[in-house]
Amino acid sequence: MRILLVGAGGVGGAFTAIAARRDFFEAVVVADYDLARAERAASAVDERFTATQIDASDADAVTALCREHRITHVMNAVDPVFDMPIFEGALAAGADYLDMAMSLSKPHPTDPHEQCGVKLGDEQFARAQAWEDAGRLALLGIGVEPGLSDVFARHAADELFSDIDELGTRDGANLVVRDDDGNEVFAPSFSMWTTIEECLNPPVIWAGDGTGAGDWHTTPPFSEPEVFDFPEGIGPVECVNVEHEEVLLMPRWVNCKRATFKYGLGEEFITILKVLHTLGLDSTEKVRVKGVEVSPRDVVAAVLPDPATVGPRMTGKTCAGLWVTGTGKDGQPRSTYLYHVVDNEWSMREYGHQCVVWQTAVNPVVALELLATGVWQGTGVLGPEAFPARPFLDLLTEHGVPWGMQEVS
Amino acid sequence: MRILLVGAGGVGGAFTAIAARRDFFEAVVVADYDLARAERAASAVDERFTATQIDASDADAVTALCREHRITHVMNAVDPVFDMPIFEGALAAGADYLDMAMSLSKPHPTDPHEQCGVKLGDEQFARAQAWEDAGRLALLGIGVEPGLSDVFARHAADELFSDIDELGTRDGANLVVRDDDGNEVFAPSFSMWTTIEECLNPPVIWAGDGTGAGDWHTTPPFSEPEVFDFPEGIGPVECVNVEHEEVLLMPRWVNCKRATFKYGLGEEFITILKVLHTLGLDSTEKVRVKGVEVSPRDVVAAVLPDPATVGPRMTGKTCAGLWVTGTGKDGQPRSTYLYHVVDNEWSMREYGHQCVVWQTAVNPVVALELLATGVWQGTGVLGPEAFPARPFLDLLTEHGVPWGMQEVS
Repeated sequence: MRILLVGAGGVGGAFTAIAARRDFFEAVVVADYDLARAERAASAVDERFTATQIDASDADAVTALCREHRITHVMNAVDPVFDMPIFEGALAAGADYLDMAMSLSKPHPTDPHEQCGVKLGDEQFARAQAWEDAGRLALLGIGVEPGLSDVFARHAADELFSDIDELGTRDGANLVVRDDDGNEVFAPSFSMWTTIEECLNPPVIWAGDGTGAGDWHTTPPFSEPEVFDFPEGIGPVECVNVEHEEVLLMPRWVNCKRATFKYGLGEEFITILKVLHTLGLDSTEKVRVKGVEVSPRDVVAAVLPDPATVGPRMTGKTCAGLWVTGTGKDGQPRSTYLYHVVDNEWSMREYGHQCVVWQTAVNPVVALELLATGVWQGTGVLGPEAFPARPFLDLLTEHGVPWGMQEVS
Repeated sequence: MRILLVGAGGVGGAFTAIAARRDFFEAVVVADYDLARAERAASAVDERFTATQIDASDADAVTALCREHRITHVMNAVDPVFDMPIFEGALAAGADYLDMAMSLSKPHPTDPHEQCGVKLGDEQFARAQAWEDAGRLALLGIGVEPGLSDVFARHAADELFSDIDELGTRDGANLVVRDDDGNEVFAPSFSMWTTIEECLNPPVIWAGDGTGAGDWHTTPPFSEPEVFDFPEGIGPVECVNVEHEEVLLMPRWVNCKRATFKYGLGEEFITILKVLHTLGLDSTEKVRVKGVEVSPRDVVAAVLPDPATVGPRMTGKTCAGLWVTGTGKDGQPRSTYLYHVVDNEWSMREYGHQCVVWQTAVNPVVALELLATGVWQGTGVLGPEAFPARPFLDLLTEHGVPWGMQEVS
């Protein structure tokens, strides 16, 4: 296996550090628009890793780079705005493709808070036949969420439930970032640009009959607030509906009556996002400011600390998981949370990467190893739910952080 | 009287429209950095008004313009960052000077939330002897707040109270701006840049013994929240301490035990300002954003509607006033609110200017008329409290909106 890693940001950097401890691949070419960043990520590991420059918006450049380095698998670790050129570039080169966020949605033009417009991944799924015809695999959404959450859905359907009512991804954390004086500061542990995109887009929900029939609809942002009690000391966090890939992926392979994603933003973060929206600071359209033109959302991202740099000043744990309700294998009502908690101090000490990017990056490393060893096999455009869950969960545990499961009362 | 009006923005434009109805002056030279804006403001009125270009940061240019046009009074209607060059330029030309916001403060370097650093107006009061020696007057803070509020303080001391405990300026409104579809939008009626400056600087408070002795101190931003019930249908609004000129002016001429300024920002606006501060979007220091450099606060101001343009889409009233507590002339405890309410629909219909800028601009027009007629006389650096209040209040009423007074229970 020869991997082209596109993007040497937070997640890309953690990917190299995690992959370096495994021997299932021959080479990783780390490509970034910023060559110096690619070099930093590649030089931190061993001689299997090399660095190069890439313009991820140029499908032909992706294809050329794949051919030059005889790439078998393209690992997309950049902003989803670049999904389509990387996805098409990989296909043209005859390489398999993996990403951690699907092609972007567009709200319904007249009824955005009730009806879907273009959905997450629609552009990619529209190309499924071409991937099947080529005998190649595009594995979409194989980070932690989407990714591990989708593996949990497969596992719940295979081993825990006979009938599923709701597949409810629930994401929460108790992370705190402090400045040099020890004061708490506002510093998102994930890309603020992407967080704004996710949280202000109309959330999507799947509603079906439980046998595969059903459809997606949307709601207004921040809908259906709920306090979810997260495990391992994180405790209760206010969660709201957010547009996320799981809702689009899970119902394609796992029968359920409802699929949701709720993000434990907490009250402060919800207030901040609402204010940014009220003021128009979430906008990506450029405005003229004293002789220059900038996108307000880029300015918001620029004034905040780079999520890749907050790790050493952060404490706490992050939890990704799936709350499944329905009927257990024993015919009794069941309500179970399958989860994965990473402690930031552990990930910083063990890998030098903060917990959110580490937790995102470990999953594609696991998936690539399962593909390399032939445990996972497939062609076309598939989600993580299309593959057996148990080998994934077992291999994930080998990386140092076991997954967990608890009944929810 | 020959007036140089520096600044043809919102307040400057309203000043020309209000002054045009009076005959106490011979000429107004409207000067702006943007000549076209000066010309628009001047051409809207009569032949006494002419337009010219000026760089308000250049004291020599102010002096030269005064000499060229034989200016007797310089009316400063630009951002207070330009106070000192205009103030010095007027003095050098032998002209009197008026402004509506005093020279800027600097927080205490180590203890900003308890001790004052450089206070509002300190730079100007430091030059008092030079103005006295020249026999010229610098009248500071003669808009509505500071300005009318300070006149109210003089009036309370002269006619209503024998002993004053607190001089508490309280500013509130129920203004609403709607978009073309009739939906409420967030659109401050005053410069967002200045509002951020005022509200995030440490608020200043005067505490004294009531006989003139005392001193100023500061608090953290948004301190001492209080719901004040504003008159004429505005109703209760959440107010917090804000740094403002009245607190620096009133105790210099009116004995009191305490002077405060509370701004009726309302909960939403307070939340917005706190979020901007949390994110660092209040900062005036430039940040690098995708190849260009911008100040985040300039971006915030740029994404919001221009306050000068919201008038036609705004409804409601704005209230400026002074809450005085102490002992009345009859020896009984007294608690009185002196106020001035302007209805936006009235000011738009009568003058074509929104209520907040109209209410600011009418007061210097009144003061200039009192100076022209010799009712107000003085030399040195003075506040509105240094002059008799009754003639001011009577002349203000001639402009169409009477002031009011009510007891506070």
